[in-house]
Amino acid sequence: MTNRKIRVGVLGATGIVGQRFIQLLAEHPLFEVTAVAASDRSQGRAYGEACAWRLPGEIPARVRPLIIESPQPPLDCDVILSSLPADTAREAEPAFAHAGYPVISNASAFRMEPDVPMIIPEVNPGHIAVLEQQQRNRGFSSGYIVTNPNCSTVNLALALAPLHARFGVEAVIATTIQAVSGAGYPGVASLDVIDNVLPHIEGEEAKMEREPQKILGEYSHGQFEPAKFAVSAQCHRANVSDGHVVAVRVKLARSATLEEVRAALADFRSAVQELRLPSAPGRPIIVRDEADRPQPRLDRDAGNGMSVTIGRISKDTVLDYRFVTLSHNTIRGAAGAAILNAELLEARGLLRRETELDAAAAAGAAKR
Amino acid sequence: MTNRKIRVGVLGATGIVGQRFIQLLAEHPLFEVTAVAASDRSQGRAYGEACAWRLPGEIPARVRPLIIESPQPPLDCDVILSSLPADTAREAEPAFAHAGYPVISNASAFRMEPDVPMIIPEVNPGHIAVLEQQQRNRGFSSGYIVTNPNCSTVNLALALAPLHARFGVEAVIATTIQAVSGAGYPGVASLDVIDNVLPHIEGEEAKMEREPQKILGEYSHGQFEPAKFAVSAQCHRANVSDGHVVAVRVKLARSATLEEVRAALADFRSAVQELRLPSAPGRPIIVRDEADRPQPRLDRDAGNGMSVTIGRISKDTVLDYRFVTLSHNTIRGAAGAAILNAELLEARGLLRRETELDAAAAAGAAKR
Amino acid sequence: MTNRKIRVGVLGATGIVGQRFIQLLAEHPLFEVTAVAASDRSQGRAYGEACAWRLPGEIPARVRPLIIESPQPPLDCDVILSSLPADTAREAEPAFAHAGYPVISNASAFRMEPDVPMIIPEVNPGHIAVLEQQQRNRGFSSGYIVTNPNCSTVNLALALAPLHARFGVEAVIATTIQAVSGAGYPGVASLDVIDNVLPHIEGEEAKMEREPQKILGEYSHGQFEPAKFAVSAQCHRANVSDGHVVAVRVKLARSATLEEVRAALADFRSAVQELRLPSAPGRPIIVRDEADRPQPRLDRDAGNGMSVTIGRISKDTVLDYRFVTLSHNTIRGAAGAAILNAELLEARGLLRRETELDAAAAAGAAKR
Amino acid sequence: MTNRKIRVGVLGATGIVGQRFIQLLAEHPLFEVTAVAASDRSQGRAYGEACAWRLPGEIPARVRPLIIESPQPPLDCDVILSSLPADTAREAEPAFAHAGYPVISNASAFRMEPDVPMIIPEVNPGHIAVLEQQQRNRGFSSGYIVTNPNCSTVNLALALAPLHARFGVEAVIATTIQAVSGAGYPGVASLDVIDNVLPHIEGEEAKMEREPQKILGEYSHGQFEPAKFAVSAQCHRANVSDGHVVAVRVKLARSATLEEVRAALADFRSAVQELRLPSAPGRPIIVRDEADRPQPRLDRDAGNGMSVTIGRISKDTVLDYRFVTLSHNTIRGAAGAAILNAELLEARGLLRRETELDAAAAAGAAKR
Repeated sequence: MTNRKIRVGVLGATGIVGQRFIQLLAEHPLFEVTAVAASDRSQGRAYGEACAWRLPGEIPARVRPLIIESPQPPLDCDVILSSLPADTAREAEPAFAHAGYPVISNASAFRMEPDVPMIIPEVNPGHIAVLEQQQRNRGFSSGYIVTNPNCSTVNLALALAPLHARFGVEAVIATTIQAVSGAGYPGVASLDVIDNVLPHIEGEEAKMEREPQKILGEYSHGQFEPAKFAVSAQCHRANVSDGHVVAVRVKLARSATLEEVRAALADFRSAVQELRLPSAPGRPIIVRDEADRPQPRLDRDAGNGMSVTIGRISKDTVLDYRFVTLSHNTIRGAAGAAILNAELLEARGLLRRETELDAAAAAGAAKR
Repeated sequence: MTNRKIRVGVLGATGIVGQRFIQLLAEHPLFEVTAVAASDRSQGRAYGEACAWRLPGEIPARVRPLIIESPQPPLDCDVILSSLPADTAREAEPAFAHAGYPVISNASAFRMEPDVPMIIPEVNPGHIAVLEQQQRNRGFSSGYIVTNPNCSTVNLALALAPLHARFGVEAVIATTIQAVSGAGYPGVASLDVIDNVLPHIEGEEAKMEREPQKILGEYSHGQFEPAKFAVSAQCHRANVSDGHVVAVRVKLARSATLEEVRAALADFRSAVQELRLPSAPGRPIIVRDEADRPQPRLDRDAGNGMSVTIGRISKDTVLDYRFVTLSHNTIRGAAGAAILNAELLEARGLLRRETELDAAAAAGAAKR
Repeated sequence: MTNRKIRVGVLGATGIVGQRFIQLLAEHPLFEVTAVAASDRSQGRAYGEACAWRLPGEIPARVRPLIIESPQPPLDCDVILSSLPADTAREAEPAFAHAGYPVISNASAFRMEPDVPMIIPEVNPGHIAVLEQQQRNRGFSSGYIVTNPNCSTVNLALALAPLHARFGVEAVIATTIQAVSGAGYPGVASLDVIDNVLPHIEGEEAKMEREPQKILGEYSHGQFEPAKFAVSAQCHRANVSDGHVVAVRVKLARSATLEEVRAALADFRSAVQELRLPSAPGRPIIVRDEADRPQPRLDRDAGNGMSVTIGRISKDTVLDYRFVTLSHNTIRGAAGAAILNAELLEARGLLRRETELDAAAAAGAAKR
Repeated sequence: MTNRKIRVGVLGATGIVGQRFIQLLAEHPLFEVTAVAASDRSQGRAYGEACAWRLPGEIPARVRPLIIESPQPPLDCDVILSSLPADTAREAEPAFAHAGYPVISNASAFRMEPDVPMIIPEVNPGHIAVLEQQQRNRGFSSGYIVTNPNCSTVNLALALAPLHARFGVEAVIATTIQAVSGAGYPGVASLDVIDNVLPHIEGEEAKMEREPQKILGEYSHGQFEPAKFAVSAQCHRANVSDGHVVAVRVKLARSATLEEVRAALADFRSAVQELRLPSAPGRPIIVRDEADRPQPRLDRDAGNGMSVTIGRISKDTVLDYRFVTLSHNTIRGAAGAAILNAELLEARGLLRRETELDAAAAAGAAKR
């Protein structure tokens, strides 16, 4: 029993992030996909036929025959990975948690709830302590909801984490140049990005302006105390498939030399790296000193898409320091982020809850 | 005599900005191109054959047969428009000024010199007063050098001008997403921008951080007093042919409501608009209220490429206000900027200096 | 009465081709847009607010306040220009013809019907003779339906027309590289064309393989005799906004030298050019001899988007000759094609039918 | 001795194909890069500093410190892989062959020479028999030159090979849509491909029209008998980083059903697959039946970039059959092609010639 893989049900499985879940889990040492669900017209058809697969390579053979189900419990799995749209997630995810499933979600629906953790394992793994309170509040017996941040927030928050820890962050100005895969498929119309830049991504600036403070804040005495800095975000969409660029200026509480700032970023490690979680990159942050890096095409796949690459670190003329940070928006920024959260939860013993889940899984199997 | 057009010699005529000069002057009411020069291997050949024309439409018929000369006086023209590379400009432009030609330059070589004006006609036309001093300093009898700013600076400085005038600007944070035409031709390698963003443009950030203060500063008592605000610039190149986007945050000296800020931008007019200079747009700044504007493809040609389009004006969470501004980098940002300067100088009576120029033109004709 | 403009109703007005109709008619000497209709959710709202305008420049002021109606008669106009989707067109267009409106359609629904002409004014203006038969067949009293070909067909058929006239065409192999605007808006997903080529456009190859023969065929004795050559088409979508490229090989019935082939293309003129129809380009075909032309970005706007540009004419190693032809797919290939058809019909006296139309227009006005 | 890796010297090491050589050989089981040479200004500097690396991922650690040498013997290696420009290759490659090095070249300089084999291992491995004659003709003692075809030819010839073998090919019409990496770095200017297609690639059509016949021809009685079919090629450059698309029509000598044609392509295997050469893909040709495949972004990396993907197989209306084939132009079309040739030569015992090479290698080491 101990050696069997944890069985994963993917919600939103036909979308771009859902496809990444399935790709990244194809050879995963701990997890295997045993159920797929989507809120669209593909329900009832085999994944291999219904999914408009947009990633290089083939749909994993094991997932091809899975029948796409509706995103409602039960599903034949131990744990839920969700990339549902926010409105669908708002109903489906608590339903699964009520039914006893751990729900690890990329959706924005619950990120800012006071009893839901928004986790980047390298940054705030301790925030999972809120789960007890969440279960109490919401009447979940063994299920729960854990979220990861918005794709642009992950990038920014990972870059800010070591600076906040060492020097204190007082203000952040972030300007993004984002890839189209962040909008899903079909997502952004090609006419809108050919020879063009869009200065607007619905809801994105608001997310970037409130999520980092929760992640870099404290959880204590049963509540989150967000970090006390303001974030200003201007978000743009460009003609790039994958890889979000964020140009950052930061004001620090304590004075720091350029070398100290660079070292804080380059030396950043965390417990996650020591736990050797399968998806954790060797270096969460890669600092590059070439004048023209990071670049989406060259750097997005660093650390199998899980490393953030930072370059152009220099003193700023208005705030204190500036740099450019880049990460893969559908791996580190979405599917990989959720999987890394799942690995963290597994390492903490929070994923395998045999009794209930066996029952739930049996029910899911019966449903099919 | 009064009705003949002013004869223009274009330096750097085969480059992207040089091509724009020739295109914009093809039907110009005041100017006609009578000489072309370039620092490259095309010298001695007819423009129509030697120039790798990269603009839609044909090379103007009148310019086709002109023989490309070396960028040295004399040339068969009354005035020089220059888009030479900075290093070539450093020698060639003073040589023309010494020989009696007004030199209106898009090159960066002399912009920051204490006796050279860097003009945006809507913003600081009074700075041409420095020309007397320049002629004295440099021993120019009737020639002189007038520059326009860097393509990204024009965009930014035009947007800042009405804010500085009404509220005082205290700090500016500017993040650009720039078009490849700004790098000339061949310029940026296609492999560098397909599915990619480059976080580096050589020298650009430094230019944006020092040029706006000179433009928005005062010229009095024989010297420039730059405006007292800091600019922070991070510059990126994206997969766009024409049109630079600048995401701006600004800190103001006096408090202002969002409506006042919007009105200051939207209502901006200048003497140039009243002079009805041929290339002056009806509105130097067009404010758009749609959530997804400005966009390069849709807005770069506004006002025949001479209007700046500003959108997404809102309160900022770190500085005071933010917005996104866009302008056509090779028209308003380069060739059109220089032509508008030439029109301003003509309106001020500073272009037609019959005696010397007739002699010079005669010499230029003889040279050919 | 004679001097008033002909009032046009645009069906499919919010789509990409509909927007081109409205843009091209903004300053048209003969036509003015007085009614707009669309099959989508925009009905009942003002065009200026409901239309996601995707063209550079503003929505013409006169069209902004027009309320979007459903594509059913009556409409307050004299003539209908239609860019409806094929399935909607199949019902709506005959309804308008029945109601007495000339319907000039860019839709594919009726192109291949034996009593419907598919017109390129420079090529087969005589085919409008079938309209009498059409009216008889279908019980149209004064209304009728005239179509223009598919965007890729126009390009190809215009290039073939002079070759067929002089040398006879025996076989054609056409391979396209097409712009995304041909798929409408939102149309092609950006993820599908960034760093990519799509080897499939639904229905396009079939259209290119049957439409040219009808256009280049004869209409006599009351029926169309299609030209007797086979066309092979392979169609691709590339990362281009506007401008379809077609690489063509052609087998000719009579032997011809390269010079004769080039001359046949370059010298092509037609009655349309002599009629001086407002949208007719001076030269329907522009031959370019540079090795690297035609190119979408440089050549699509030739002749205000109504000229076809042909280059790389040479002997072929398998068939007889080959060349590359390019035209603007939403102007010459769609909206401009229909407008030129309307101008031809007007010149032939087939647009102004005062009695019925005045009644219809009155009814349309009443409906609003 | 037998277990040591064969030491490779890469000529043209700083170019795009040279970078692919180095990337593909980083973990190669048989080969290791021990020398790098280039014809450019980078000579004398460490590869890790001098090379403008344009591939994702890092320069392999072992290659970083290698000093870039001039492309002249001796070099510290056993075998030469060359991606020199044709003109440089014309002198350098025979010099290495004279000095005893096997030269496996991607350059076009010698491909069509009557005593030089142009090899695709799956197609014409027997052509290496010409090497004896080559050595005699050219006075090479143990060195020799083996070439691979042009990047577009590999793609086409692999697709034609099974058809020619089973049905006989009588004529081929090929239209390409090619990636910019084929032009090297900086190569194609970004202004030339943004929102654009170029209908011209210098020399490409001529190569495609003569190389396939040599590859698919016979070598017997000491000479090549090219296959007797004509190829017509029209070549275009599009906004794609990697992956050449070729739209093909083919006329066959014997009649074949669509199923037979599909099966011939899908079932194609060769001795190379049985030899289990490290770079040989499991399937040299992957047939896809989806309507919208192959696509560069999704299919170029199939078989680690060594498989050709073919789709849209159907009857043609002018010739017999048509299809679209795609391959990775710098892997299967260049660096991977040469490495596979090297593996074939190694399997045939033609790479390890201890005596001479040890001497040469010693000399190369001394030179450094």
